[in-house]
Amino acid sequence: MNGFELSERSRPIGRMDSDKSQRVAYALRLGDDALIAAQRMGEWIAAAPQLEEDVALGNIALDLLGQARSLLSYAGQLEGAGRDEDTLAYFRDERDFLNAQIFELANGDFGFTIARLLVTSTYQFELYRRLQASTDDTLAAVAAKAVKEVDYHRDHATQWTLRLGDGTEESHRRIQQGVEDVWPYVAELFESDDLVASLAAEGIAVDPATLREPAMSYVDSVLAEATLPQTETSVHHTGGRRGIHTEQMGYLLAEMQHLARSHPGAQW
Amino acid sequence: MNGFELSERSRPIGRMDSDKSQRVAYALRLGDDALIAAQRMGEWIAAAPQLEEDVALGNIALDLLGQARSLLSYAGQLEGAGRDEDTLAYFRDERDFLNAQIFELANGDFGFTIARLLVTSTYQFELYRRLQASTDDTLAAVAAKAVKEVDYHRDHATQWTLRLGDGTEESHRRIQQGVEDVWPYVAELFESDDLVASLAAEGIAVDPATLREPAMSYVDSVLAEATLPQTETSVHHTGGRRGIHTEQMGYLLAEMQHLARSHPGAQW
Repeated sequence: MNGFELSERSRPIGRMDSDKSQRVAYALRLGDDALIAAQRMGEWIAAAPQLEEDVALGNIALDLLGQARSLLSYAGQLEGAGRDEDTLAYFRDERDFLNAQIFELANGDFGFTIARLLVTSTYQFELYRRLQASTDDTLAAVAAKAVKEVDYHRDHATQWTLRLGDGTEESHRRIQQGVEDVWPYVAELFESDDLVASLAAEGIAVDPATLREPAMSYVDSVLAEATLPQTETSVHHTGGRRGIHTEQMGYLLAEMQHLARSHPGAQW
Repeated sequence: MNGFELSERSRPIGRMDSDKSQRVAYALRLGDDALIAAQRMGEWIAAAPQLEEDVALGNIALDLLGQARSLLSYAGQLEGAGRDEDTLAYFRDERDFLNAQIFELANGDFGFTIARLLVTSTYQFELYRRLQASTDDTLAAVAAKAVKEVDYHRDHATQWTLRLGDGTEESHRRIQQGVEDVWPYVAELFESDDLVASLAAEGIAVDPATLREPAMSYVDSVLAEATLPQTETSVHHTGGRRGIHTEQMGYLLAEMQHLARSHPGAQW
């Protein structure tokens, strides 16, 4: 073994591995966001305040589930360790989920759900709009399909925010409370780190920091039109992208993974 | 007031009222079946053993929810007492729900869910196929749309029954257990009573007793192909069409109605 051969072999492979593992992590981040959001949204089926809204939230849940499947399936392929999208969804532990914490918070009030959807769908819309130009063909294709879906989600959340904010005293109070409860979890969506910065430099990923201005300017304009006051918070929760989650994540995973785990390897 | 006037007025009105209240009850029976089934199916979103199946069951839930909306909305219009589909879904008490008990049973195992879906979707398929010829234009139109949807549900349940029954020892055992657990609740679907018999005589409704043979012959053929043995039961639960429900119905309604009831009259 000579030095030349070593450097020839180790450099490109080392780089490819690092690049690949970064892509895996990136696809997991986006996929976990969608998966966990779908789970929370699905809980609304036949529990929303109107049957029409049950149908709407159910459709949103299914869109998100479709995005999750594509992204987790791609992460599994890249990883090359034989884990498909189902294994990634049902057999990872909490610390291995990379979704932002905002997605895992319990549904609470309908006002909270709408306030969260307004922020997250706007974030996803700005993200997928740009990710269509990714040099990674698979991510670009997923983004091209997803952007149309989250555009609808954003529109739905916008209509409800206006209706609740500009509605009765009670509905106004509840959407405002929802916005205040969501706010400490918003900043995490726009955090950058070495992983996304490096993938963004290669044109693969979109740096979330670049999404803050366009996303929050849209959200702020909706809140203003809904006669909701500017919200301030000095608390910013973070850690989801590194596998650190809230207490509520454990309950969500228990419900989501129970069936698959109670019969591991079962041929369904 | 003379005798002639009295008989002229009272007969047709009396008949119309009775006919109308029967139609209301009939639309509620069908609508409640769909609503309660949608609630149970929606619980599977992001909890099924595969993400692909989450999407499929979620879509089935949304089809059923759409059917429920149409039927409850029509029941409310006929009733003419100002109750819309949301009021009927969220503000009736357990004793006023007219669904067959099979729809309200807790999901339990995936095998149970598939066994139930096989029976109920086959029942609904045979029902809606015939109800397309109803002399009631609204019921005929609802049936024409619904029959295509439940045809797909039936096909989905059939594929899964074959796959589980003809799969591993474990999957075979579980679908068989599902069929056995479902069986005591099957006969109620095909029960006749004065209400449906009278509406069927007018060409408005389909008498469920006429559906037993075609529906069960289909179910039996699927079970045979899935290598599942004939199931026998001497227990037949009934009462749903008269508002008598299982313990599990209470928990389902609590979850479904909680939000709407915690803020009655709120402008969402």
